[in-house]
Amino acid sequence: MGFVETYSRFKNLVDDELGRLQFSHQSNSEIYQPLDYMLGIGGKRLRPVMTLAACEAFGGNISDALLPALGFEVFHNFTLIHDDIMDNAPLRRGKPTVHHKWNTNMGILSGDMMLIKAYELIGAARPEHLPALLHVFNQIATAVCEGQQLDMEFEKAIQISMDDYLRMVKFKTGVLLGGALQAGAIMGGASNEDALRMFRFGCKIGTAFQIMDDWLDTFGDPEKTGKRAGGDILERKKTFLMVKANEISDKNQRFALQEIYVNGHSNDEIISMTLSLFDTLNISQITQAEIQQQYSQAIEELKFLPVSSAMHLFFNQFAEYLIRRES
Amino acid sequence: MGFVETYSRFKNLVDDELGRLQFSHQSNSEIYQPLDYMLGIGGKRLRPVMTLAACEAFGGNISDALLPALGFEVFHNFTLIHDDIMDNAPLRRGKPTVHHKWNTNMGILSGDMMLIKAYELIGAARPEHLPALLHVFNQIATAVCEGQQLDMEFEKAIQISMDDYLRMVKFKTGVLLGGALQAGAIMGGASNEDALRMFRFGCKIGTAFQIMDDWLDTFGDPEKTGKRAGGDILERKKTFLMVKANEISDKNQRFALQEIYVNGHSNDEIISMTLSLFDTLNISQITQAEIQQQYSQAIEELKFLPVSSAMHLFFNQFAEYLIRRES
Repeated sequence: MGFVETYSRFKNLVDDELGRLQFSHQSNSEIYQPLDYMLGIGGKRLRPVMTLAACEAFGGNISDALLPALGFEVFHNFTLIHDDIMDNAPLRRGKPTVHHKWNTNMGILSGDMMLIKAYELIGAARPEHLPALLHVFNQIATAVCEGQQLDMEFEKAIQISMDDYLRMVKFKTGVLLGGALQAGAIMGGASNEDALRMFRFGCKIGTAFQIMDDWLDTFGDPEKTGKRAGGDILERKKTFLMVKANEISDKNQRFALQEIYVNGHSNDEIISMTLSLFDTLNISQITQAEIQQQYSQAIEELKFLPVSSAMHLFFNQFAEYLIRRES
Repeated sequence: MGFVETYSRFKNLVDDELGRLQFSHQSNSEIYQPLDYMLGIGGKRLRPVMTLAACEAFGGNISDALLPALGFEVFHNFTLIHDDIMDNAPLRRGKPTVHHKWNTNMGILSGDMMLIKAYELIGAARPEHLPALLHVFNQIATAVCEGQQLDMEFEKAIQISMDDYLRMVKFKTGVLLGGALQAGAIMGGASNEDALRMFRFGCKIGTAFQIMDDWLDTFGDPEKTGKRAGGDILERKKTFLMVKANEISDKNQRFALQEIYVNGHSNDEIISMTLSLFDTLNISQITQAEIQQQYSQAIEELKFLPVSSAMHLFFNQFAEYLIRRES
């Protein structure tokens, strides 16, 4: 089977089980409706798919890993609900965010409930795996919250360093994908060392994924990404591109980069002036090189894993898929 | 040893260990400061004390139960942070609430972190107890969130039934105390049946505790409670007293009870008119009788527990302490 078939096999299991969960059918409390709403919006289900793949790769029974795998998806959606409140975002994947569709209090409380349900799903692991699994989950949940705190802190900062950026992305995005893989490896019976390799693979590829996200927002094809290029520029987001531009620009260029926003230019002008500076600084190529480097380091972690060549190929193709995507 | 000495012995263990936790010393992320702030405000530490007491009562080693016991205190404080945001409350035990001292986003995120830290503490249980403990914790966490949802729903309602009130109080207050006792019993090696008895004891006594809270706000001695009598009346809170008054009043009395608020009376008049109606309806005595009944049902659960007569006496005295207190 090729990559797409294998990925679909795992994703169908995930989607079927998510369909069965239907939190709002378990109780008539209104608090469950946002949970089903968020999970119903869909998505690539990257994290639970990786949990199942890692479990199977190490010879585990994926039916034992299915509910804990969903725990990672439910946790991810909890972070989306609360992040959207904190960011004051009206839309998520084109649909109203929970706090907009209901209200802020419902957003807070349903997010809390979703975090609890994530733990409940983790708790469905086999007892012999539970202590290790819960430990991994607590660690990544802690990191994700610390990452969100960094994100809020950095928003207020005028500039941040590349170290800051990479730490934030690792915490907000990398560790969750890494943790999902590590958890799958644990349930598959992997050694601690191999489970940690899976974690590092996920961390690196998650970081590459996020940097690719930044690249696509500015350099992607709007017909494929479905959104206008340059949105991050207009929002003055501290993307990899902007942080790198600030890092490598000289005094005059750095000044020019700030001035773009304060001189009453139109949105189109802001974007084109920034793009022109990015071009001078070679930002697109540098960013692609960084993605390539994170990708290579990720692939390196896979090298000595005791998994079948088919699964080895699958993880390689997954990594490639994440960084080659056009949307 | 008397009740106070035994309670203090457990409470000192809890306070010492909480002092050692100091989340903000573990990381320089600002997100941990509200956690230490909330835990530093202090309190009776009812829940972790009960976890330790139940563990010891069933012959367990309380040093194994200490971190999970703190999990219940940390969880309780997570609910306070998020509830204070949802209630828009500026003060908690006379100190600024987290979202007032910092801001709403910090309140949301530090509450999330606190919930995760609660699970981390539960995760420190001995592996053989972990599956049962996590199951109990997930169940009570779910109930507490459902209780908060009911509370928000009931706030918008004109009237609620006594069944609604009791369900909300059980979910918001009862189950957490019950769960703390059940968890202690599990770690002490109690049978499932005995652990469930401890749960029901805690549930009932927690409910009695909350009704007593309602009674004290209206009928307590302000010199002892430290707050002006009648605050709940002015806020039109759906307390046991008010729900009962609505339940047993005739049409004219019920109308009078509503009219008090809409005729431009002063605060003093609102309180005295309500008190006069409460007096006619015998609300104080009826409330005390309900507290007594919940208490008796709680005590009933203790009867056949295989614990020493000293610990039996301790739980009895604890129950009495909760419902006889003057503040």
